[in-house]
Amino acid sequence: MTPGFSFEVIATLGNARAGILHTPHGDIETPVFMPVGTAGTVKAMTADELRAPPLDAKIILGNTYHLYLRPGLEVIGGAGGLHRFAAWDRPILTDSGGFQVFSLAGINEIDDDGVTFRSHIDGSKHRLTPEISMEIQRVLGSDIAMVFDQCPPGDADEAIHELALARTTAWAKRCRECPRADGQAVFGIVQGGIDTARRLRHMAEITALDFDGYALGGLAVGENLADTYRILDEVAHQLPADRPRYLMGVGTPADLERGIAAGIDMFDCVMPTRNARNGYLFTSGARVNIPNNANRLDFGPIDPECPCATCRTHSRAYLRHLYLAKEILYARLATLHNLTFYARHVRRLRDRILAGPH
Amino acid sequence: MTPGFSFEVIATLGNARAGILHTPHGDIETPVFMPVGTAGTVKAMTADELRAPPLDAKIILGNTYHLYLRPGLEVIGGAGGLHRFAAWDRPILTDSGGFQVFSLAGINEIDDDGVTFRSHIDGSKHRLTPEISMEIQRVLGSDIAMVFDQCPPGDADEAIHELALARTTAWAKRCRECPRADGQAVFGIVQGGIDTARRLRHMAEITALDFDGYALGGLAVGENLADTYRILDEVAHQLPADRPRYLMGVGTPADLERGIAAGIDMFDCVMPTRNARNGYLFTSGARVNIPNNANRLDFGPIDPECPCATCRTHSRAYLRHLYLAKEILYARLATLHNLTFYARHVRRLRDRILAGPH
Repeated sequence: MTPGFSFEVIATLGNARAGILHTPHGDIETPVFMPVGTAGTVKAMTADELRAPPLDAKIILGNTYHLYLRPGLEVIGGAGGLHRFAAWDRPILTDSGGFQVFSLAGINEIDDDGVTFRSHIDGSKHRLTPEISMEIQRVLGSDIAMVFDQCPPGDADEAIHELALARTTAWAKRCRECPRADGQAVFGIVQGGIDTARRLRHMAEITALDFDGYALGGLAVGENLADTYRILDEVAHQLPADRPRYLMGVGTPADLERGIAAGIDMFDCVMPTRNARNGYLFTSGARVNIPNNANRLDFGPIDPECPCATCRTHSRAYLRHLYLAKEILYARLATLHNLTFYARHVRRLRDRILAGPH
Repeated sequence: MTPGFSFEVIATLGNARAGILHTPHGDIETPVFMPVGTAGTVKAMTADELRAPPLDAKIILGNTYHLYLRPGLEVIGGAGGLHRFAAWDRPILTDSGGFQVFSLAGINEIDDDGVTFRSHIDGSKHRLTPEISMEIQRVLGSDIAMVFDQCPPGDADEAIHELALARTTAWAKRCRECPRADGQAVFGIVQGGIDTARRLRHMAEITALDFDGYALGGLAVGENLADTYRILDEVAHQLPADRPRYLMGVGTPADLERGIAAGIDMFDCVMPTRNARNGYLFTSGARVNIPNNANRLDFGPIDPECPCATCRTHSRAYLRHLYLAKEILYARLATLHNLTFYARHVRRLRDRILAGPH
C-alpha cells in the first residue's frame, strides 16, 4: 500500500469486518460512513460540527467533477489543496468525476481516451480522461483518489457492459501510472453490473493491478434492490481481504447493514444530507416527515434516543416551523441529526462485529 | 419600572451613555445591538453561536407579526413561550407587529381601534389592535414588549401624521392596561416624523404614561439621512434619562455611532444579517462584496482584525466559492461575521464612553 496507509482487520463476524484504516490525516474505524462534501462543504455543516462527537466524522468525500468546474483548480490549488481550502484536517476521499459526467453533465462523447461533456452549470465544454481526473485529484490533494471509470446504466445491454469493462480496466492501468499528491492512496473500481460472473471477472482484472483499496461501482444505479444485494453477497467478500472495500453511493440504513454483512468497509451517500434538507429525518423508530401536521404540536425531540445537539435542544414542532418557513437553520439542524443517525448506525454495527457471535 | 427590570447609566460622554439594563433573563450592557430573529431564529444561526464570544449577543428581537402568522400562538404558547420554543435563554424584545402590518402585509384598513390586514404568506385576513398585539406578546413571553403604534410613511402629510400621533398615544394608553407575561416590561414609542416640535410634543404624551423604556419609531423609513440625524440630535437626549432609549430598525455602523452619540442605548436592524446573505460583509476597512472577482484568489480572511470563527478559519476565496455555489454554509459564516462586526463596533463605542473625554 501507499506509504502512510495501512489497513488492519481487527474482528470479523461472518463476512463482516471491523477494522482500522490508518492514513496520514488520522485513523478511520471501519465500517465507516463518509458524509458527502460535494462542493467543498458537507452541505449546511461546518468542519467543527462534523468533527464534534457524537457525529465525529473521520473522513468526508469531495466530488472531483463539481470542484473542477467550481471553484476550479486555480482556486483550490492556490489555497494549497482541498483540506486547506475547506479547513478540513481529517481524511478526504475524492471520486474520479466519472459518475457525475455520466449522470449530471450535458451530452457527452465517450471514446477510448476519455469523455467530453458540457458543464451542468454553464454549458461550457470540458474533457475528462484518466490522466486529467488523476491530475485534478492530485491538485485537490485528497487522501484517497478513485480511478476514472465508466459506469454504464443499470439496464445497459451486454455489449455496452463489455465495452465499459474493457475501458474501465484500461483506464485503471493508466490512472495507476499517473503522478499523485504526496501520500495519496488510489482505489480501483470494480464494475460489471448485476452479472456475478462478469463482476468477478472484472474484479480479477482490477485487483491484479494492486490498488490501496477496492470499490464496487455501478450498484444502486437503477437495478432491483434484490440484484444489488445478490451482487453484494456474492462479490464483496471475494475482494482482497487485506484492503478496504468501498461500496460507492449507497445507501439507506438497511443497505449499509446489508453491505457491512457482505464485507464492505466504507460507504458514502447523499441520502442523510439530502433527505434532511427535504424534510425526511431518520430515527430509531419510524422515519419522520417533518412537515407532517402530526409534528405541529409535538414538543418532543426527533428521536429521544439520539444524542445530537438538535435532538437535545429542539422539538419537532420547532423544526417543522423552521422547515415550513424555509429557514436556513432548519437545514443545519436536520443535517446534523441525519448524519449523526448514520454515524451511530454504522458504529453500532461495528460494535456488533467486535462483540462477536452470541 | 417593572419588577426585575432596572436601568443604570454608569458613564456619559456628551449625550452618549454607557449603561446596564438588568432583566430577569440577564444583564444587557448598553449601548447594545439586538440581532433580529424574525421567525424564531436569527437567520442561519443557532442560539449557541449567538451566545458564544466574541459575538456574545445579550438580547435578540422577535417579530410579533411573523410569529403570529407562522407558526402561530397555539404552537409557541404550547411550547411555553418563545424562549423555550427557540431554545434561547437570554432576553428577547418583541416588536408590536405594527411596522410589518404597514410595510409587509396586504392592503390594510386602519381605524381608531386597530388594523385589518392580509397575511403576506397566504392572503388570509387578520386583525391587530393594541389589545391583540399585547396578547400575542404576552403569549410569546418576551422580556420587553413594544406598544402597538401607527408608523406613517416618511413623506406622509401633516394630517396623516397628526392622526397617527393621536392614535399612537391612545393605543399606548390601551397597551399600558393590558395583561402581560410575568415580569414583562413594556416600552412606549415616540412617533412624529421629522418635525422636531411634533416629536417633542408626542414624546411628552408618551413619557407621561411612564413606560419601562422609550423607543424612537418612524425613523429611517424613507426620509433623508440628514433629517434622521437632526431628529436624533434634537430629540434622543430629551427622552427620560433613567430609562433605556431604543432606536427602532436602525441602521448602518455609522448610524449606530451617530445614534449612540445622540444618547440612544438600544438598536436593531436586519442589515448585518440580510447584507451577509446578500454578499455584503462589513470590515474594519472597506466593505467587501464577496462575489467580486478580486476575492477569487484572496486566501486571507474577510477582516484580519476580526476574531470571529469565520475570519479565523476561512478565506475570502472559500466564502466567494460558497456564495457563488449557493451553499448554505455561506449564509452561516457570513452572518456570524457581520453580527460579530456589529457587536464589536457597538462594544468599542461603549468602551469609548467608559474611557471618557481625552
